[in-house]
Amino acid sequence: MKTDHRITELRKLLDESNIDVLIITNLLNIRYLTGFTGSAATLLIGSPSFSKNDYGLLCTDSRYSEQSHVQIAESNAQIEISIGNLATQLDKSKLFAKGALEIGIEADSTTIASFNAWTQAMERTIAPSKVKVESLRQFKDEEEIDAIRRASHIADEALADVLPKLKGEPTEIQFAAELEFRMRMLGAEGPSFETIVASGPHSAMPHARPTDRKITEGDPVVIDFGAVWEGYHSDCTRTYFLGDTLSREFQRIYRAVEAAQQAGVEKAVLGTGASAIDSACRDTLAAVNLEEFFTHSTGHGVGLEVHELPWIHKDSQSILAVGDILTVEPGVYLAGQMGVRIEDTIAITKTGSECLTEIPKSPIIS
Amino acid sequence: MKTDHRITELRKLLDESNIDVLIITNLLNIRYLTGFTGSAATLLIGSPSFSKNDYGLLCTDSRYSEQSHVQIAESNAQIEISIGNLATQLDKSKLFAKGALEIGIEADSTTIASFNAWTQAMERTIAPSKVKVESLRQFKDEEEIDAIRRASHIADEALADVLPKLKGEPTEIQFAAELEFRMRMLGAEGPSFETIVASGPHSAMPHARPTDRKITEGDPVVIDFGAVWEGYHSDCTRTYFLGDTLSREFQRIYRAVEAAQQAGVEKAVLGTGASAIDSACRDTLAAVNLEEFFTHSTGHGVGLEVHELPWIHKDSQSILAVGDILTVEPGVYLAGQMGVRIEDTIAITKTGSECLTEIPKSPIIS
Repeated sequence: MKTDHRITELRKLLDESNIDVLIITNLLNIRYLTGFTGSAATLLIGSPSFSKNDYGLLCTDSRYSEQSHVQIAESNAQIEISIGNLATQLDKSKLFAKGALEIGIEADSTTIASFNAWTQAMERTIAPSKVKVESLRQFKDEEEIDAIRRASHIADEALADVLPKLKGEPTEIQFAAELEFRMRMLGAEGPSFETIVASGPHSAMPHARPTDRKITEGDPVVIDFGAVWEGYHSDCTRTYFLGDTLSREFQRIYRAVEAAQQAGVEKAVLGTGASAIDSACRDTLAAVNLEEFFTHSTGHGVGLEVHELPWIHKDSQSILAVGDILTVEPGVYLAGQMGVRIEDTIAITKTGSECLTEIPKSPIIS
Repeated sequence: MKTDHRITELRKLLDESNIDVLIITNLLNIRYLTGFTGSAATLLIGSPSFSKNDYGLLCTDSRYSEQSHVQIAESNAQIEISIGNLATQLDKSKLFAKGALEIGIEADSTTIASFNAWTQAMERTIAPSKVKVESLRQFKDEEEIDAIRRASHIADEALADVLPKLKGEPTEIQFAAELEFRMRMLGAEGPSFETIVASGPHSAMPHARPTDRKITEGDPVVIDFGAVWEGYHSDCTRTYFLGDTLSREFQRIYRAVEAAQQAGVEKAVLGTGASAIDSACRDTLAAVNLEEFFTHSTGHGVGLEVHELPWIHKDSQSILAVGDILTVEPGVYLAGQMGVRIEDTIAITKTGSECLTEIPKSPIIS
């Protein structure tokens, strides 16, 4: 996969911040910049004014010798590959032979052990970098949007396939396992996160883990799940009611959440502030006196991580831009009784937005 | 789960190393010491001479407020709980009010960002700790051995259940998904690692990932997999041959690996050096001129991580002791043609050893 355009963007930021070389230890950032998918690596990227060509060095271990060469060749980036820990590979690197002075490092993903070893080997001061690869990752290119769309469609299809099994009254764990299995058989690399299947009173816990509880007639069931495709995540929540006749209380809550979610989705378009999505959801719930039961944030970005920039909450300063992909997921939770959450993943486009999750929102299992 | 005996052992080590307080950031170490299973926490443990009672502080976030209180109460340990980042919780802690001078930290799991924030908040020098919780984790107590035995039995039963499906010639990915699904339905929390199903020439790659390749008549199939139970991992490899008549070459390789693995397992008993297991495997293969095709290490410990102490290789200084649980997994890989690996997980006991993985070793699928 060609990724060199992403490195070009990063290098511009390095120049602007007077960083000669950035040490990247977050494996997802390394994957984003180079396409390398191994489980052990350190990446060095030089700024344009420090290193015109030979601007990159990837250190990995011998398990990934062949794979790293294939993936770096596909990336179209000018990156040397060295097998071994960065501390022992510096002499061999064209990049470092030039003597970088200002070295930045990813402080949130580098351990003290690595930092100390590298500081000693480089005989330089290394400082936490203000340039964040995550800020580039926030805005997805076409290839990334395609991957999340594909992940979303796998998840949609899998849920449609297994949903009728709810009528067989499986346990929460069994239904979660069926759903994850079906996603895998449809081509997912795995689930985006531990699937939430929360039935009956469990549905009132936003972060419930599946249990041995048998899902039974009259239960609300919150299903929050996603698929991974080419490293990219999908994220979707639907709430169902097991039974032919919705309880009055469930209907009231469901309608309120559905309206709140719809209001949020309508705000999720090019140029809106992320905080406006949050207030659209909360105001809609407030109008029916349910705001206090919406106890978590309204959404988050989705990409190589299932939770990433932008964050959707009342204090968010983000203005939605082309390439943002985010969730809108209000919920109402009545402790010990029931909960309802509805979530879609939305891509911000030149013309407004595209909803990537397409499962119908009826709570009735047909 | 009672875990306070583990903290007692750790505190002895702290006294011996003159560490007043150890900052623990590795979540598996925190789980081991306290039973806390949340995804965000920092744990402080004081030495006996620094803090007789009130020797612990667990900082976590608001999602885990209730869970942390339940799990810490069950641990029987004297640990305060504070909701918030360690940097903001020090004033509130009885432990720190006493003014620790020698503070150690886990260098392999602490980020620079956390280290810098905590150094500033504590106004103290914090040094990488030589005391390692991992060295305690190496020796499993009865509860841990039970968990790994249970995980192994789930894995055994799942493979026995799905093995006949190989005859239906699934793809590697489909078979891996079936096996993981079955483990989950039998109560596993998940797979120990990404299941390896490597068929035909793929079997020659020790770290192969499952692909869309259809497993077909005449293929060797390496299946390396495990289940997680209560956080503890199992690890087992079997190699099968799809077809009624084993090829001559497959038989030759299989018999050699089987003999090598058996020789290794016989050495895996109380009081032996880990390096003796390695040489038993390699010498057996050398006797039939296959040693050069065994290209990875012979084994590793298994516990809260699927790879942990002790390491089984020729330079290992470990002498096997009661509570060691380790794998013995020689293989022979003929590039582009075929590979065979056989792996068991062995617990070292007072009387010798117990093999926890019980799947028969016949390569024929009956």
